[in-house]
Amino acid sequence: MSELTFYTHPMSRGRVVRWMLEEVGVSYSVKALEYGPEMKAPEYLAINPMGKVPAIKHGNTVVTEVAAICAYLADQFPEKQLAPPPESPERGTYYRWLFFMAGPFEMATSAKAHGWTIDDGNALSVGCGHLEDTINTLESVLAQTPYICGEQFTTADVLVGSYLWWEMSQKNIPPNQVFQEYVARTGSRPAAHRANQLDDELAQQMKPTTA
Amino acid sequence: MSELTFYTHPMSRGRVVRWMLEEVGVSYSVKALEYGPEMKAPEYLAINPMGKVPAIKHGNTVVTEVAAICAYLADQFPEKQLAPPPESPERGTYYRWLFFMAGPFEMATSAKAHGWTIDDGNALSVGCGHLEDTINTLESVLAQTPYICGEQFTTADVLVGSYLWWEMSQKNIPPNQVFQEYVARTGSRPAAHRANQLDDELAQQMKPTTA
Repeated sequence: MSELTFYTHPMSRGRVVRWMLEEVGVSYSVKALEYGPEMKAPEYLAINPMGKVPAIKHGNTVVTEVAAICAYLADQFPEKQLAPPPESPERGTYYRWLFFMAGPFEMATSAKAHGWTIDDGNALSVGCGHLEDTINTLESVLAQTPYICGEQFTTADVLVGSYLWWEMSQKNIPPNQVFQEYVARTGSRPAAHRANQLDDELAQQMKPTTA
Repeated sequence: MSELTFYTHPMSRGRVVRWMLEEVGVSYSVKALEYGPEMKAPEYLAINPMGKVPAIKHGNTVVTEVAAICAYLADQFPEKQLAPPPESPERGTYYRWLFFMAGPFEMATSAKAHGWTIDDGNALSVGCGHLEDTINTLESVLAQTPYICGEQFTTADVLVGSYLWWEMSQKNIPPNQVFQEYVARTGSRPAAHRANQLDDELAQQMKPTTA
């Protein structure tokens, strides 16, 4: 098996990838990077010219973008059944929610967090539309099925679960029962627990010591 | 083969999906929707609760989000070789650029278009970082290889080609030679020509007649 290196910061979107790595159960080494100069150093820009974490290097393949890394890992380890088979009709639903989270949901919640205006004047042209629409869309699905693609947990739940938890904790979206139950259901998976524990430990190690 | 319906407006991101449909060469019927009440009508909200185009219905599978639709079509019609095989290492590069366009690039260019501030104060926390970083990242790759994943045209080029053309035409990003040559190279494909022609004709048909 190819060697896998995980570039991350424990207080970043890298936590989503950590969860995915633990779901897959592959062995990997961790390269923790501090925000600032370390993430913008030439050695790391050669991995990700955006100077952002997370990223992975798997053999000679570099993958950046949280959802891309998760989708790639699901395909590399198909025996884990974390994605519908590529040629199955269910693959459409799976991609739909992966890209929904990476696109409209991430943009609409960023707009909320940073005070960017989305109103009836521009909601048509911004790709994400109103934040409320993205919330209602997810809620309408999760009110009907335990997981975002149906009865089966998939990689798309790693994204949806992580993002809903984060945005509720940041109060960018109001908590509701459907989301709370879903976040509890997905977050109770052993891999999610292990991932949180590992990143909490890493955060402790990275904390600058005070005199 | 399952029946395929394409929901679109000829002056929308649906043009990207039209190009992809023409690359795949599958037969499909078009349901053109006007902006406003038609896109927000219950019949269409049952397809996409976001009330946005494009979307496709392929058999019983509904797919929304431009990149998701394109990725799904590539996987449904693997004989067209528009994506690296799912378990190949190259799949990582492919996902990287699909999600890069759907995520950071779309958000950073939207921020530019709508006057949303991204500066050193928030570039760390917004997922997309600075627009210049997204441009430089794409340019550094496209300066070295003819297509975004290397020597081979893939579905990721349908996205990268379409988005770069659009953002240059909107002057959200300054034109440069690398991008101009790449857009000319990808846009000269017969499927891209056919797609543009079909959408231009549809736009003419939808134009309200003036007395």
